[in-house]
Parts: sequence; C-alpha cells; structure tokens
Amino acid sequence: METIKEGDYVLIRFRDKRYLKRVEVDKNFSYKGGVLQFRDIVGKPYGITVGELQIFKPTLEEIILYGIRRETQIIYPKDTFYIAKKLDLSEGKKLLEFGTGSGAATMVFSSSVGREGRVYTFEREERIFKTAKRNLERFGFTQNVVMFNKPFDPSEVGGIVFDAAFVDVREPYPYVEAVHGVLKPSAPVGFLLPTANQVEELLKHLKPHFGDIEVMEILVRYYKPNPERFRPEDTMVAHTAYLLFAKKLSI
Amino acid sequence: METIKEGDYVLIRFRDKRYLKRVEVDKNFSYKGGVLQFRDIVGKPYGITVGELQIFKPTLEEIILYGIRRETQIIYPKDTFYIAKKLDLSEGKKLLEFGTGSGAATMVFSSSVGREGRVYTFEREERIFKTAKRNLERFGFTQNVVMFNKPFDPSEVGGIVFDAAFVDVREPYPYVEAVHGVLKPSAPVGFLLPTANQVEELLKHLKPHFGDIEVMEILVRYYKPNPERFRPEDTMVAHTAYLLFAKKLSI
Amino acid sequence: METIKEGDYVLIRFRDKRYLKRVEVDKNFSYKGGVLQFRDIVGKPYGITVGELQIFKPTLEEIILYGIRRETQIIYPKDTFYIAKKLDLSEGKKLLEFGTGSGAATMVFSSSVGREGRVYTFEREERIFKTAKRNLERFGFTQNVVMFNKPFDPSEVGGIVFDAAFVDVREPYPYVEAVHGVLKPSAPVGFLLPTANQVEELLKHLKPHFGDIEVMEILVRYYKPNPERFRPEDTMVAHTAYLLFAKKLSI
Amino acid sequence: METIKEGDYVLIRFRDKRYLKRVEVDKNFSYKGGVLQFRDIVGKPYGITVGELQIFKPTLEEIILYGIRRETQIIYPKDTFYIAKKLDLSEGKKLLEFGTGSGAATMVFSSSVGREGRVYTFEREERIFKTAKRNLERFGFTQNVVMFNKPFDPSEVGGIVFDAAFVDVREPYPYVEAVHGVLKPSAPVGFLLPTANQVEELLKHLKPHFGDIEVMEILVRYYKPNPERFRPEDTMVAHTAYLLFAKKLSI
Repeated sequence: METIKEGDYVLIRFRDKRYLKRVEVDKNFSYKGGVLQFRDIVGKPYGITVGELQIFKPTLEEIILYGIRRETQIIYPKDTFYIAKKLDLSEGKKLLEFGTGSGAATMVFSSSVGREGRVYTFEREERIFKTAKRNLERFGFTQNVVMFNKPFDPSEVGGIVFDAAFVDVREPYPYVEAVHGVLKPSAPVGFLLPTANQVEELLKHLKPHFGDIEVMEILVRYYKPNPERFRPEDTMVAHTAYLLFAKKLSI
Repeated sequence: METIKEGDYVLIRFRDKRYLKRVEVDKNFSYKGGVLQFRDIVGKPYGITVGELQIFKPTLEEIILYGIRRETQIIYPKDTFYIAKKLDLSEGKKLLEFGTGSGAATMVFSSSVGREGRVYTFEREERIFKTAKRNLERFGFTQNVVMFNKPFDPSEVGGIVFDAAFVDVREPYPYVEAVHGVLKPSAPVGFLLPTANQVEELLKHLKPHFGDIEVMEILVRYYKPNPERFRPEDTMVAHTAYLLFAKKLSI
Repeated sequence: METIKEGDYVLIRFRDKRYLKRVEVDKNFSYKGGVLQFRDIVGKPYGITVGELQIFKPTLEEIILYGIRRETQIIYPKDTFYIAKKLDLSEGKKLLEFGTGSGAATMVFSSSVGREGRVYTFEREERIFKTAKRNLERFGFTQNVVMFNKPFDPSEVGGIVFDAAFVDVREPYPYVEAVHGVLKPSAPVGFLLPTANQVEELLKHLKPHFGDIEVMEILVRYYKPNPERFRPEDTMVAHTAYLLFAKKLSI
Repeated sequence: METIKEGDYVLIRFRDKRYLKRVEVDKNFSYKGGVLQFRDIVGKPYGITVGELQIFKPTLEEIILYGIRRETQIIYPKDTFYIAKKLDLSEGKKLLEFGTGSGAATMVFSSSVGREGRVYTFEREERIFKTAKRNLERFGFTQNVVMFNKPFDPSEVGGIVFDAAFVDVREPYPYVEAVHGVLKPSAPVGFLLPTANQVEELLKHLKPHFGDIEVMEILVRYYKPNPERFRPEDTMVAHTAYLLFAKKLSI
C-alpha cells in the first residue's frame, strides 16, 4: 500500500481550504487549528485524517491549482481538461503548444499523451519560460515535453507532423498559416482567447486553412456539499476565456 | 500522409450539421445538396472539401455524439472529459466503472488510460450491456476494457486495487462501502447524479469512507462563429447531471 | 369575487403547456385530453380546475409569451422586466422607446408607468408597426402609449423631456446624441443588442454623452418542479441579447 | 431642470466604484483621488462630472445596493425586479409580503404598485423590523407600505383580498393555506428559497392550494464595458436563491 514518503507532495485539506506541501521530516505545516509535524505522517497511508486535517495524494488538478508558480494568468483546469480531450490527445500523440505560459496546460497535455507522446511548447518571454520550466521539473512533467524559449518557429520542429496544436497568445492571427503547415490532415487546433474582439478577429483569419469551427466557453458551477442545505456556491468564476476549435483543411 | 480508406469512419460536415459515416465504396451519402459517392473520396486526404461538404477524421467526441447507439441517456463529452481528468486518469491507470450505459464514458476512460491501463465496467441490464459492447467493438475500444453484464460485484475483480472509480447508477448509496474497499488510498471517485435529491442522499452516505467532497455542474456555452455577428447560440444544454467527486479516506 | 366573463382572455394550463384564449360562449378549446366548452366556465371563478385543465387569469408575462403576434424576434420578459426596473420606471414617468417591434416591451413599460405616465414609441416599418398596434389594442395598453410609424425623430416629441429611454434598433449609433437631447439630466437609457460586435461599436459612441455604463445578460434557469426529482430543465434559452445601460451626462 | 439640492441622496461614480451619499453643504466626500465639497455641487445639474467623479441621481437599484442597511442577506435587485413583474404588480395592486427583511424587496414592490396600491409587510424579528422601517423611511417608501412587527397573521389584514403575495421566510410550509385564504382567485404567489431542500419541501405542500408552478433562478452576467477588449467579468454572483411562483387554485 502506498504510503507518504519524504519528498512527496501532499494535498492537505483543512475545512474549506486546500494546501499543497512538500513533505520534509524536519519541517511542519501550521494552520489555524494547530501544527502538523511532517515526520508524524511519513510512512502513513494517504487519505489519513490527522485532527481536522485530511492528507491526500495530489491530483494533477491540485498540482496546478495549489502547487505551481504563475507569471501569467493561469489557464484553469476546467478549460485545459476540455481542451486536451477536444484535441483528441491520447497515448503517443504529438502536440504543438504556444505560448507555454505557466506550464499549467502543458502539464495536462503531457499527462494526456503519455511516455511515447510529445508536447513541443514555445514561450518567448524568458521570465515566463523559466517559471514554466521550474514548474514542469518540480512535478515531473519533463520526460515528454520539449521546451523552446522563443516565439513559435516551424523551423525548430522541422519535419515533425503534429497530431494537434494549442495556441494561447495574445495575437494568434499571424500564426494561422504556419500552424496549418505543421499539422496532419484534419488535425484539430485549439485557441484560447480572453476577449470577444480576439475571437472575431481570429474568425476572419481561419479560412481557408481551417474548417469545422466551434467557439465555446466552459463554466463550472460548484455546490455547497451540505445534504441539508444543498445549494450552489454564492459566487463563481464567470469567465476565463473563449475557446475556439477548428480542424485543418487540406487545401 | 493519412488518406481516407475503405472501412474508415469519417465525419462529414454539411453546413451546421455533422454526420459520422462508414466509408463503403459501393455506397453513398445523400444530403440536401446532392450525393457523395464514397468511392470518390477513398485515397484522398482527410480534411478535403467536396462541394459543400468537408470530410474529417472523427475525434473521440464526434464518435460519441454522432456514432454510437444509445439505450440510455448518453453522458455528454462535456461531463466525461472533465470526469476523466478529475479522476486523474493517465497512461496505465486502472479504473472501476458502473454502470456502463451506452459506453460513451467508457470510451473516454479507455482512451485516457492507454494500452497498459484497464477499465473494468459493470452493466446489469443485458440490453444496455449488449449495445455498449457493440459500440466499444465498432470503434476499437475493447483492448483495455473488461466488461461485466451484472451489477458491480467486488468479488469479480478480486485482488485488483483501483486507481479511481466512476459510478453512474440511479441508487449509488448501497455501493459506497464496496467501492471504498477496492480503491487505493486517497483514490478519487466520481458520481454522476441527475437530481438534487440524489446528491443530497449520497452526501449523507459518503462519511466516513470518503472526504474532500466536491459537487459541481459543467456547462458549455456555444457561440455562433460569425465574425460580424458574434453572439452565443440561442439555446443551450442547461443540465445533464450533477457531478460529485470525493477521495478515499483511510479508516 | 372575480369570475370568468365572455370576452375575457384566459390562460389555460394543460400538463406542461399553456394557452392564451379568448372566451367566446359559442366556441371551445380542444386539447389532447378532450374539449372545453367555453360556456361551461363563464361565471366560474378564476383558478378553477376542469378535468386536467386549470384556468387562470393571464399575467402580463403570459399575454406576451402566449398572446401577441410577432413580426420580429420578441423581447423576452426576462429582459423587459429587468429593463423596466433598471430604467427606474414607476407611476407617472415618461419613457421614449424605439423601435416598437412587436410591442412586447411597450406593454411592460406601459404597465410600469401607469395611467399618468407615457410611453412614446417609434417603429419605422409599417408592417411591424401595425402588428404592434393591434397587440397593444387587443390587450388594453393604448391608454398611455403614443405610437409613431417612423424612425425616431426628436421633433415629433418636441418639448417633452423624458425620464428614460429604451433603444432596440439594429444600428443605434447615429441616435446617441438625439436621445441625449430629449432626456432629463442623469436619466437612464437602455439598449438591447443581440451581438458582441454591436456592443463594441456602441461603446465607442457613448462618450461624452453617457456615463455609468453597464453591460450584462439576464439568464433564467428553469427547474422541473418535481419534489422527488428536483433538477434544472434539460435545455434553456442561452442568449437573447446583451443589455447596455448608461446615464445621461450633463455636458 | 432638476438640480442637486441639500438633503438629496446622490450616486457618486468613481472609477469602478459607486457610492450613495447624502448632500450636506458642510460635509464632503473623500476618495482616493481627492475630496469633493458637497457645497460645490449644490445647484448644479445631475449628471455632472467633477474631476474623476460623476454625480447621478440614484435609481431604485442603487438605493438598494448602496444605500440601505442590512440585518439579513439582502434580496438582490436581479431577483426583486423579476419577482415584481412575475407577481404582475402595477398601479393600484395590493401585495402581501413576509418577511420584510431589510426592506429591499418592499421598496421595489412599493415602487411598482404606486400611490394607490398597498404593500402589507410582516417581519417578526424586532431588530430586523426596525432596520427595514428606517430604510423605508429614509428613502421615502412609507406612503403605501403598512408594516407589522410580527409573523404573518391573516387576522391583521382581515377583509383585505390581495392581488399577490411574496413569501421570504426560512420555513414557508405552514403558511401555504393562510396565504391561499387572503388571495384573489388565480392570484400569483412568489417564494424565495436559498436551498434545493426548501424547494423540494415546499413543492410537497403547495397542492391542492396552488397550481401553475414554476421554479427558476435569475442569473446576471456582467461584462467589462471596454470596446477593444469586450469580455464578461471574471467572477459573478452564482446563486442567491431559487424563486418559486404559483397561482391560487379555486378549491
């Protein structure tokens, strides 16, 4: 049975809050209700309850929400979970991504394509690139990820024909033709666009390279898990970005 | 370059509609604008345009939405995409699922765990089981799926310790302890529940077996992809089901 | 006690459906479960049950949804109810409206400003104007409504200083200054705009005439009223229009 | 032309914020960008701009959102605006309300029924009653409102037959019959219920007294009014309450 080990990242749940912490035997986690000595949980099974705390093995979502550093607005798991599947990612697929941002989406894609798949990801800003690199290294997502500290440049991936592409840059319009050039026939591409104006502009640039266009938003509405007073949470994330998906046309 | 072959399933886009068809050289696809002879597209690249039609390689989402038979209400991709990731499925994981239903969720899970992963899925109604089986066979998802035509029974999977579980039955309450029994420590479980009453009832049954409970709905809002008149679609799917996720507590 | 009379409009509820009908003693209402002779309900109290039917006095919302003729896309009560209050309409206020459309919004505004209030409404298309006129006459909303079959023209309302304005035309941009000219200081104006592009364009035209700008959508999510299986309806109206409100600046 | 006077309440807009203040010539309003001396705006027209500030005449919505004191969770204008119209309130109507709460809904109803209409409102908690009374007095809504500091009691309104009723108490179930007793035939009643459990419970109690039941939520999604970067606000109010409407059956 899997037990908590020195060096593991653990997800600590305390009342309504969650914390992602690295287990170091000479350190502790202090919270409003007391102090947890990490040495006391090493060797214990995941899922244990210690006083008011519950200690879990973090999921990918929790690593993204509570574990990574951000230089930019994070892409939410609600969006990246959907994007990964809309791009039809599975074992062995090759994905092109730019820009990398904090690496949150890269992690989801890396997890989706598995050991034999590959994510090629471009980020032009050095500061952001370095943060993403550290995030990916810290949580073990480097094995199938190839990172470039530059704007997307097809010549860097010369010869690779990608199964899918994901584009998250402020001005994606100039890249439409280059992305088309490195994709397999019929391959899906996804764009993340915070504003309506960007969607309107991109829609003008997709033809004749891409067809089967879909635009949507993903909304997650959380509920208070109280069986006697079941109701939605008072507030919610109303908007992160519009998502636009299309497929490569053979022209 | 990948070309369209006899026996392939293709996704045909005609105006606002999509059709999933099997390519048979002596057959055709008739639509409001004419007739497509399948023999005319064999050997052509995916992504080609034929008159008003565009011919794509279907994604997993399109197989589910346009290709499978349904005996029950289908679980929407918006939900299964999210569930697969919330359950932290990736290459090599073992998932327990019941009930199988039409197999739509099973396909998403099968695609998520890859060749070395496994989905063990139980469906007690024979008619539904047979439809799911045919759906999974037709689209090639049987390699890593083990199907049972019976209610979930832990003795059938004796010895397997699962990485995650997904439960989609009308009355999941009696199964809480048995599911807990076959999961790894801290492993996530997901439930799909159409009504508020079911959520309220299940919430009463989860303690002390599961913690870190979250309840939510996933909403997808589609937009008309018209750059000059960008606006949401007039209507939308407002509700499919509440999703409840929790993690195994070590008790 | 108020009873059903010849000539009344009644709201008939049959299972999930609602019908607005005029009571004529020699006519009947046939439905899937049988036939209702109107003579049988004359003199009976509102709210009675006749077999599977329930007979109610129609509310303003029901007149709009089930009783009026439409030449254009109707403005939904969810929107007009909110607009009437955002425009701070109450007893005695004077409202400028254009275009009139089917008159659905006009009815809500007429009802809001009462006998001493006034709604001045402009509709340039004769066909639409005539339909609106008939709708307003049929349901008794003409007493405080002044209708013009022409585009909005300030000289037609010369001297009137309005408490509020509501604009529902495809291209409202050229009217901004003229609307400003006929409003009281600080008076609210509302615009109804189906597309994001229209909102973007209008936002560019409002300064320096209007301030305190707000843009929003109103969404109504209906639930199945089943106490044992409480859940949202499967589908919903996802979009009718964006609403934009602003207030007159004194410049 | 209407000008700002000593004693008026004004709505001050500063950047993204709004403030409701009473104009007193020897006082001022200090904000991040400076200080406004109220004496400097007396006699000026509403809608003027003073530096970064804009000074408006407050609407009913702004009085509720920025001007009143709250002892309880406020009912949002998005809900009360809709309720007032669903209850078909207009000039001269008589409404029964309980509980009064902060008086926010009472103001909207008072404004809807006009001088000749009446709102009879009951609040059993003295502290809440007093706050509501002060709110209604301060903003001039007492003329057509009759307040009771006690639980709803039909004998207090003996003889009045109401056009509509609105119920906002934690446990409305015991009042169903009494409300039915004081309403006109076919009259609408509205209930505000924060939790799904309350809706489920109330649905069991409505028959045979009320029919034509509807349950819904009202959602308002605000947008950033930036013409170059048009997009929804990042967060939104996700839930205030479920609304349930029904009509009196004649039994």
